[in-house]
Amino acid sequence: WGTGVNVQAMVFGNMGGDCATGVAFTRNPSTGENALYGEYLVNAQGEDVVAGIRTPQSLTAAEAEARGSSLPPMERAMPEAFSRLMEMRDRLERHFRDMQDIEFTVETGRLWMLQTRSGKRTAQAALQIAVDLVEEGTIGPEEAVMRVEPQALEQLLHPTLDPDAERDVIARGLPASPGAASGRIVFTADAAEQAAANGEAVILVRSETSPEDIHGMHAARGILTSRGGMTSHAAVVARGMGRACVSGAGAVRIDVEDGVMLADGRTFTTEDRITIDGGTGEVMAGEIATIQPEVTGGFARLMEWADGARRLGVRANAETPRDAEAARAFGAEGIGLCRTEHMFFDTDRILAMREMILADDEAGRRAALAKLLPMQRQDFADLFRIMDGLPVTIRLLDPPLHEFLPRTEEETAEVAEAAGVDAVKLRRRALRLEEANPMLGHRGCRLGITWPEIYEMQARAIFEAAAETGAEPEIMVPLVAAGSELERIKAVIDRTAAVVAEETGAALAWSTGTMIELPRAALRAAEIAAAAEFFSFGTNDLTQTAFGISRDDAGSFLGAYRDSGILANDPFETLDIEGVGELVRIAAERGRAARPDLKLGICGEHGGDPASVAFCHEIGLDYVSCSAYRVPIARLAAAQAALAEKVGGEGVLV
Amino acid sequence: WGTGVNVQAMVFGNMGGDCATGVAFTRNPSTGENALYGEYLVNAQGEDVVAGIRTPQSLTAAEAEARGSSLPPMERAMPEAFSRLMEMRDRLERHFRDMQDIEFTVETGRLWMLQTRSGKRTAQAALQIAVDLVEEGTIGPEEAVMRVEPQALEQLLHPTLDPDAERDVIARGLPASPGAASGRIVFTADAAEQAAANGEAVILVRSETSPEDIHGMHAARGILTSRGGMTSHAAVVARGMGRACVSGAGAVRIDVEDGVMLADGRTFTTEDRITIDGGTGEVMAGEIATIQPEVTGGFARLMEWADGARRLGVRANAETPRDAEAARAFGAEGIGLCRTEHMFFDTDRILAMREMILADDEAGRRAALAKLLPMQRQDFADLFRIMDGLPVTIRLLDPPLHEFLPRTEEETAEVAEAAGVDAVKLRRRALRLEEANPMLGHRGCRLGITWPEIYEMQARAIFEAAAETGAEPEIMVPLVAAGSELERIKAVIDRTAAVVAEETGAALAWSTGTMIELPRAALRAAEIAAAAEFFSFGTNDLTQTAFGISRDDAGSFLGAYRDSGILANDPFETLDIEGVGELVRIAAERGRAARPDLKLGICGEHGGDPASVAFCHEIGLDYVSCSAYRVPIARLAAAQAALAEKVGGEGVLV
Repeated sequence: WGTGVNVQAMVFGNMGGDCATGVAFTRNPSTGENALYGEYLVNAQGEDVVAGIRTPQSLTAAEAEARGSSLPPMERAMPEAFSRLMEMRDRLERHFRDMQDIEFTVETGRLWMLQTRSGKRTAQAALQIAVDLVEEGTIGPEEAVMRVEPQALEQLLHPTLDPDAERDVIARGLPASPGAASGRIVFTADAAEQAAANGEAVILVRSETSPEDIHGMHAARGILTSRGGMTSHAAVVARGMGRACVSGAGAVRIDVEDGVMLADGRTFTTEDRITIDGGTGEVMAGEIATIQPEVTGGFARLMEWADGARRLGVRANAETPRDAEAARAFGAEGIGLCRTEHMFFDTDRILAMREMILADDEAGRRAALAKLLPMQRQDFADLFRIMDGLPVTIRLLDPPLHEFLPRTEEETAEVAEAAGVDAVKLRRRALRLEEANPMLGHRGCRLGITWPEIYEMQARAIFEAAAETGAEPEIMVPLVAAGSELERIKAVIDRTAAVVAEETGAALAWSTGTMIELPRAALRAAEIAAAAEFFSFGTNDLTQTAFGISRDDAGSFLGAYRDSGILANDPFETLDIEGVGELVRIAAERGRAARPDLKLGICGEHGGDPASVAFCHEIGLDYVSCSAYRVPIARLAAAQAALAEKVGGEGVLV
Repeated sequence: WGTGVNVQAMVFGNMGGDCATGVAFTRNPSTGENALYGEYLVNAQGEDVVAGIRTPQSLTAAEAEARGSSLPPMERAMPEAFSRLMEMRDRLERHFRDMQDIEFTVETGRLWMLQTRSGKRTAQAALQIAVDLVEEGTIGPEEAVMRVEPQALEQLLHPTLDPDAERDVIARGLPASPGAASGRIVFTADAAEQAAANGEAVILVRSETSPEDIHGMHAARGILTSRGGMTSHAAVVARGMGRACVSGAGAVRIDVEDGVMLADGRTFTTEDRITIDGGTGEVMAGEIATIQPEVTGGFARLMEWADGARRLGVRANAETPRDAEAARAFGAEGIGLCRTEHMFFDTDRILAMREMILADDEAGRRAALAKLLPMQRQDFADLFRIMDGLPVTIRLLDPPLHEFLPRTEEETAEVAEAAGVDAVKLRRRALRLEEANPMLGHRGCRLGITWPEIYEMQARAIFEAAAETGAEPEIMVPLVAAGSELERIKAVIDRTAAVVAEETGAALAWSTGTMIELPRAALRAAEIAAAAEFFSFGTNDLTQTAFGISRDDAGSFLGAYRDSGILANDPFETLDIEGVGELVRIAAERGRAARPDLKLGICGEHGGDPASVAFCHEIGLDYVSCSAYRVPIARLAAAQAALAEKVGGEGVLV
């Protein structure tokens, strides 16, 4: 048995006026600026700085000036020790190749270093420092890429709450779509639209949103829902729009009838203002100051290096021209998921859509679809032009038809009058379409099989737009469970292509593929790959079905699951590699075994989650697709995954 | 090149009064009676018998007498040829070892045989003939077991429609629960109960049923639903009760508000009578005569031979004493699934259940659960006594809590008044519990994790009943997706057992296991088996999640899928071996690898489907469990699977 002893010199910062102690960051940890940043106290020991009894002084003259401090900075008061500190700063940074957080003491004029370590920093500083270190020649670009947490980029792209402002938190939900927003409470999409038209900032508060709320979501500054998870309608759409959103705030109860929101034992009405932080999930009473993000040139540099390092492609989920433009601005290399149903909710379109649903026979449906055709064609032509030769994956109609019908008695009466149809007929039709579990209902390719004319119209719109623009679309069939389903629908697509080619004289080029979003589809991947040129993993639905958890209903127990450690992560945020991931892996292997050139991508929300992106890299997918605002995160995560693989490590590359 | 020529003697049955032609079954194809059965015509050729221009005469004197025919039977008219025919009958049966369907001609007194083949027969005849052939020493018992189609036993256990009665078919649905039934239309469970109390036969017609309809389902002769598949609530419960049911008759529209049912362009009200055939799925206007089944001693013999041949155990799904008694009567070797939620719908219990749901805190929930405890204990004690040492698997509460709350505004007001609670509070609670996709919602073990006191009460009731009766219960945790969930709940069960053992001084023995009914659970079987002593495959939910198809909503497209050949079978009727079956196989393998003595069973509806039973045998499960009325089918199917394996063939064993 032995005893280890550390013998260390003891130094004193409190032996008189030529003594001092201080802490310093070698660069500014908030902004990343390349300037010493810190504080010191004359004739003091370290604990005096921490205790906050005396007011510490700045280190540099510039900082003292910026703070308007009358106390002399160390640069002036102890020029020699300061200059030695500056030398140490350079030496430590060169040695550790990173910004340092140091503690020092000056004993009778002599500088002693007590401690040094890599300093904590904001996202903006992390980025700036990494880029500067490359330019200074301290580290290489690849190392810079590894130095920035992909998730942290979110802070750089959205407004955040002023950290110094007081917060009156009334509820917590899920951080569904980043950014902070304040506004008056409104409970309906129409109210949101009206208020926005008057230039008023509002927060749309709903138990959950549906596609009919989209205009209100566009108009609102932020969205708060009491139900639904990270991949609920509200969350997905808000992320796509770059709108702040807190979802599944279970403790918030909304009584639309009485026009009140109950939270934290208090009652809020449309007279009240609230603030939401989509980055943390907090809901606060009143208005709170926000800070706008600053995107620097360093961001572009880092992204460039990341793009050079990654193997995975990165696409965006986008359907409107605005989404597509945002996607390109954020560096997306194509559209991985264009959800065509979102195109049917505009006022003029939903009328034709409902006409189609109410039609008694195929002829009636075709007549209504004929009205939708030119609009769909225009949608696709616009997207193809914006994407300018980049791949565009278009998913055929997916949601059950009842999503397009009114829900309440009053809405039904209104719609019936507006559409000039019999309210009883409308009610009976809605009754027939009603489903116990819409997520598992008559949707996806099941619609295309029972009513092939719907997909036929969509295929025609795609091919006519392709003929017009020269695009080579990727047509994606949703919710396939068996190869026979895809074969059936591929026949409709191929037939329609032949007709359009004949009519237009254009030489059409396209590919047909499918979502893999059901466990059975993953297992039967070989059979499905016979008819599919690409697979896109719909990991939202795959997670729902593999776990048997509805993303819209998970709010009531998933929190308890995470808090008690039953699940390490929300599987709708980070891909469950053990379970859902095994299905993805099985499908990728079986699919490629059956068709070696099968293209593989992922278009669930996980496409923008760094850990999930790393998994997609590892199993050899070709690309990930996520909401436009997460594209930079995915680019960086993909680069880190590739670099980590290069050194054979787990992401440690220092 | 050559030409093959068959040279055959030509015989004439139309050369005079000593000539004749006829067809015969060597035994009665309707009843299986061991007596020649058939017809002949004097001075005629075969086509004359078929054409039906002349009235054919009986073969035997006994048959002529039974028919009251004045025409001379062959036995009298041509005694020599007849006696030769009787010789041939014996010889052919001995040679082909089965009942034969033969054609013959008599030419100038001499009998010529034209053709012989195995004869088609009813289920009853198949059974009787097989048993008789064993007793006559023609075939062995194992061969007899292979001779009867398991599915055909259904005809032997339920009333069927008189095949000669005229049918006015107004719709078709799924053959959800066998048997034919007629009665007046009622639209509510209460109306069914009232009518039944007056001795009236009624058919309960609903868009779908819920647990609150159970008293009405008991009271009705049959159940017709416009929605829901083979495993919808209506179908499952009706099969369990042995009640006839047609489900998912999509063309039937029910407008409860107007009190009408629309079908085949006609309107039916509660003044009208209808007939349903749960064996075919037909719905007919008016009342149609039915034939009651006759269960013979042969049935018991065949079942005995089957039990001697099979390896798979056969249990029943049962929860009431009546179910349990039926299960034993049909030869079940235990209860494989006791769904405890069905026990909470009696009038006095649902009040306590609602009290629990409405409670503001754990103390309130515990107070309400304390009221349920003695009733639950009695439920289990009754079951344990009836099953008398046979295994009983009890599934803890599974459905989401909102299933216990009223649905409409009026019901809510009623319930609030009856329960003496605030209607607004009740409405808000129901609102909070409402789910977009209840099938994937806050149910199963998720309830046990968020409100452990519920499972604790159930575990206490089970253990107290076990202490009282000496039973060794199998406690089954539903809807597990991860091992950590089961561990958490097993801890509650074990703790409760220790408390009850301490209180009662009884030495308790029990096992804890889980349903495997989610794809993720199948994949993570090794991790789950660490805490599970048995797995029971819940193939209903596993099929729903693997396919992403809600059994309640599948009616609108599954028919089209089957008709167009996209799916060969309804996956809720016959296990989808390629997809769902792979999950079962994976789970069985991984589970057994982790725990070699893991007991494996299946308790989905597939447990009573012959093809699915064969699969369960093949992958080495220990038992299947199905509704009591299907137990004989499962016993026979299990025997056939074992015998087919023995000869290494595909079930061909002649």
